[in-house]
Amino acid sequence: MSEPAQTLDGWYALHDFRTINWAAWKLLTADERQAAIHEFKQYLAKLDETQDRKEGSHALYTIVGQKADFMLMILRPTMRELNELENEFNKLMIADYTLPAYSYVSVVELSSYLAGDSDEDPYENPYVRSRLYPILPKTDYVCFYPMDKRREGNDNWYMLSMEERKDLMYSHGMIGRQYAGKVKQLITGSVGFDDYEWGVTLFADDVLQFKKLVYEMRFDEVSARYGEFGEFFVGHLLEDSGIDRFLHV
Amino acid sequence: MSEPAQTLDGWYALHDFRTINWAAWKLLTADERQAAIHEFKQYLAKLDETQDRKEGSHALYTIVGQKADFMLMILRPTMRELNELENEFNKLMIADYTLPAYSYVSVVELSSYLAGDSDEDPYENPYVRSRLYPILPKTDYVCFYPMDKRREGNDNWYMLSMEERKDLMYSHGMIGRQYAGKVKQLITGSVGFDDYEWGVTLFADDVLQFKKLVYEMRFDEVSARYGEFGEFFVGHLLEDSGIDRFLHV
Amino acid sequence: MSEPAQTLDGWYALHDFRTINWAAWKLLTADERQAAIHEFKQYLAKLDETQDRKEGSHALYTIVGQKADFMLMILRPTMRELNELENEFNKLMIADYTLPAYSYVSVVELSSYLAGDSDEDPYENPYVRSRLYPILPKTDYVCFYPMDKRREGNDNWYMLSMEERKDLMYSHGMIGRQYAGKVKQLITGSVGFDDYEWGVTLFADDVLQFKKLVYEMRFDEVSARYGEFGEFFVGHLLEDSGIDRFLHV
Amino acid sequence: MSEPAQTLDGWYALHDFRTINWAAWKLLTADERQAAIHEFKQYLAKLDETQDRKEGSHALYTIVGQKADFMLMILRPTMRELNELENEFNKLMIADYTLPAYSYVSVVELSSYLAGDSDEDPYENPYVRSRLYPILPKTDYVCFYPMDKRREGNDNWYMLSMEERKDLMYSHGMIGRQYAGKVKQLITGSVGFDDYEWGVTLFADDVLQFKKLVYEMRFDEVSARYGEFGEFFVGHLLEDSGIDRFLHV
Amino acid sequence: MSEPAQTLDGWYALHDFRTINWAAWKLLTADERQAAIHEFKQYLAKLDETQDRKEGSHALYTIVGQKADFMLMILRPTMRELNELENEFNKLMIADYTLPAYSYVSVVELSSYLAGDSDEDPYENPYVRSRLYPILPKTDYVCFYPMDKRREGNDNWYMLSMEERKDLMYSHGMIGRQYAGKVKQLITGSVGFDDYEWGVTLFADDVLQFKKLVYEMRFDEVSARYGEFGEFFVGHLLEDSGIDRFLHV
Repeated sequence: MSEPAQTLDGWYALHDFRTINWAAWKLLTADERQAAIHEFKQYLAKLDETQDRKEGSHALYTIVGQKADFMLMILRPTMRELNELENEFNKLMIADYTLPAYSYVSVVELSSYLAGDSDEDPYENPYVRSRLYPILPKTDYVCFYPMDKRREGNDNWYMLSMEERKDLMYSHGMIGRQYAGKVKQLITGSVGFDDYEWGVTLFADDVLQFKKLVYEMRFDEVSARYGEFGEFFVGHLLEDSGIDRFLHV
Repeated sequence: MSEPAQTLDGWYALHDFRTINWAAWKLLTADERQAAIHEFKQYLAKLDETQDRKEGSHALYTIVGQKADFMLMILRPTMRELNELENEFNKLMIADYTLPAYSYVSVVELSSYLAGDSDEDPYENPYVRSRLYPILPKTDYVCFYPMDKRREGNDNWYMLSMEERKDLMYSHGMIGRQYAGKVKQLITGSVGFDDYEWGVTLFADDVLQFKKLVYEMRFDEVSARYGEFGEFFVGHLLEDSGIDRFLHV
Repeated sequence: MSEPAQTLDGWYALHDFRTINWAAWKLLTADERQAAIHEFKQYLAKLDETQDRKEGSHALYTIVGQKADFMLMILRPTMRELNELENEFNKLMIADYTLPAYSYVSVVELSSYLAGDSDEDPYENPYVRSRLYPILPKTDYVCFYPMDKRREGNDNWYMLSMEERKDLMYSHGMIGRQYAGKVKQLITGSVGFDDYEWGVTLFADDVLQFKKLVYEMRFDEVSARYGEFGEFFVGHLLEDSGIDRFLHV
Repeated sequence: MSEPAQTLDGWYALHDFRTINWAAWKLLTADERQAAIHEFKQYLAKLDETQDRKEGSHALYTIVGQKADFMLMILRPTMRELNELENEFNKLMIADYTLPAYSYVSVVELSSYLAGDSDEDPYENPYVRSRLYPILPKTDYVCFYPMDKRREGNDNWYMLSMEERKDLMYSHGMIGRQYAGKVKQLITGSVGFDDYEWGVTLFADDVLQFKKLVYEMRFDEVSARYGEFGEFFVGHLLEDSGIDRFLHV
Repeated sequence: MSEPAQTLDGWYALHDFRTINWAAWKLLTADERQAAIHEFKQYLAKLDETQDRKEGSHALYTIVGQKADFMLMILRPTMRELNELENEFNKLMIADYTLPAYSYVSVVELSSYLAGDSDEDPYENPYVRSRLYPILPKTDYVCFYPMDKRREGNDNWYMLSMEERKDLMYSHGMIGRQYAGKVKQLITGSVGFDDYEWGVTLFADDVLQFKKLVYEMRFDEVSARYGEFGEFFVGHLLEDSGIDRFLHV
């Protein structure tokens, strides 16, 4: 009899990666570009207000390499709000000068593997709440990748017993803890929502810590035998002050 | 000697996912856009009439993330009608402002794994008929994904005996039943029609139930060892009243 | 020592799938569209003449879903003729309003697995000739998919002995025979010509028979253990009389 | 201790597949098209001169199906020359009316598996030289496909001993010899140059021989267990006299 | 208990592959093209200055075949600088006449497998520093490919003990040493940064040495059983003096 892991689910998440059509952007007059930037900043200001009210969060990062030029990551209490914000972005002037590059739909998730027993309603626990409804850190760098647990021949995560999975996740978690203070990790679940089972978003001021963490974990059995990874994206914080510079041509 | 599962087959299904070319849509005058929306609504009204006569059904949902902007799912007694409705859509003004994103061709299917023995013609059974020729629920959210049964090494569904498959499907079905009242599931068969063997369309007012259901099933042997999944799409109901808002720029 | 199956090879086949650029097509004047349709029909009339002389055959079907809008399948005695007809199509006015969607290059093939022993030259046998140089049936529906025989670990078709392959193909053929009168099957070989080893084209008036046939075969060991399938396309007959309606905007 | 096969390496090879943008080509005036064809023929005449001097070789073939419209295959003593000829082609007027379809970068290769022992410098042997620096035959048809030797589980070519590989290649070569006089085979190595390990270019006047040869080889253990194949392209000779006809619209 | 390899990490690397839109480039006036080339050379001159100060390095190569037309590879102390240089390139006039082809984000890496024991801080060792912060050689040819270590069934690199990995890497390294003086190899790590785990950049004046080296290594167990390779790119040095000729139309 299978025993699925229980999850706690928080805010819904949209990772929206876009490539800028620089050639078309340059064809605009300086005034048109300024109007588009101004409108985009108003959109971001509205997101800031929501974040100030703690009714959601977001982060804006440029992306290194040709996979995308920037990523806007948004967290909201309902998936409908994500959909509306995505459509609202598409209607901005600046969206006409971007091309879709990648997106990911998921929900902030805490898994029960590492949880202790308790009668408490975890959704009322302040620490749990702070992790399910997080204000995204504004670290210098971000890393995002989606992943699956493997189901292949003898390496089938979903055929393991709960006990085996718990043991494996415990030592896996131990690696993560060594990076406390260096890397903040946000796990979002996407089973039923997108093509992989989880999205992993890492935040750090030192970009090298992403490599150290992911590489070290790869030698751990959970990743070594059971991890299947999608595309990796790495980027640098794009704050309001940097937007003008980024979009200046 | 192989013993294939018997199926009952109902209405043919087309899942048609489209991306909106917002930049081109904005270039239209307000009058042109209004004319295109009006024509699109007339098309949908015709679909409504067919549904009112119970000669088919359909559902319109926006899609979250970059995979598509909306999905129009249509059920009809013949595949030819689906083809004609698809071509009719392509000739609408609004179609010129959409890009193909994904589509799926299948037929509503009930499998015999869970059926009891009976001399009755199942196609005359009112309950069976209601499931083969369903009026699609208008829940807040929809989830769609195509899937195969695996044929790999020791994990080959099609080399199992009918008895083994029946046992596996029974416990699989038990999971689904726990979601009765929360998630409505529509299975459509696509062997010979499209690239995967089945399409799964889930309907729910609480989008989180998609994740819970699909994740729980993944620990069941049918999915864990034998499930191969395609792309996942998740979306929000787009009712007539919402179309204007969705397309307003 | 390997013993390959012997094949009889007939007319060369080109399956040419195209998507219509409806937005561009609508931009033409009614006269321009009429001229393009007229020219396309003249091209088809020339194909009809060849078919009347039994020097080739062809079939035109719309395709359901976004994979393509129509398929033109052509059989000819030489591959060069196929190439010339393809180039001739590309130079038609209507071709400018289509986009390539998929194509398949192969040759009508009969395999020796089911053949009896005989001293006769099979290429002189009238029945064999009717199957190597077939006039394509004009059934209501068509189904096309390419396929390989698997070569993976213990499931390696090409490492089986001729005897084993013969036995497997015999029971496989028995399934096909049950569909006699319902589904006409045309096998075309494409080893050395295209990416899969065979193309399968099915013709039926009842589209559901495609699903029944392919699904039933999937439980047979030949497909279950050794079949690798490409994309599936399903479509509806587009006869001269229907072309105007199909292309009318 | 691994023992790699030794290779002899000759001229560098570029297989350059292009699709013609017929719609744009038709928009030119007859004079513009004539000028573009003339310039293209001058480019080809220069290649002919090099070939006459035996300082390289080339072949031009149309391609059947939608994968490409033509392939220009060029052999040269250095890779730099290939790069320059490719860039020179891109600067031709006709290149503006083509789209990249596929390309392959490799070097003519003779492997040592079938070589006898000798103290002679093979690069001085006239027979070897004729195979390393070949003038491409102008047969009616061409076939091209890239391939790898498999490295999967128990089917790992690169873990076999030299002796095992030699034995396997010997019987493989025997099949090829049966096609002497019917099919000319050119093997080009691409390890470190392109995505597969080898390119195979076959030349024949009877296109069916490609299918017979490749299908027969597939039952041989070298292909059955160890062959991984890329895309297959098949085409017809396009000689100077045929270029006008091919490009006439 | 897993024991990951320790790495030393140097400058961050961006491999940026671009295809030239020759048709659009030709539409410019000679003056416009000259202005674009001049601006591009100024950009390169700035990179040269950084290199002269030993605060980074870069190399510009044309690419053979259709995968790309040129690659600009840049090394910098921080990933942010790479991102800024990439954005700066995108804002150049010439960028409007290029299309993204491929990119790779990584960091110069030395692994500990072959290191001896020492109390010394390796980051202070001049030899180590010269390899972590290298001035790229300007050889005639370059080769780039990304790669993974395999994690499949019995061929799972990450489940091997440190001892086993060390032994395997030792004999692998022996092959590389035979190419000393012929091929310079730069390994960049990309776990957490891009889709593969490493990028390999090879530099040589004799392009054939790439093939010899990579082919010989493929018979070594590290590659034979554990290597998974991405796309291969090969190109020729494009020095300042050659840029005018390359871009002249």
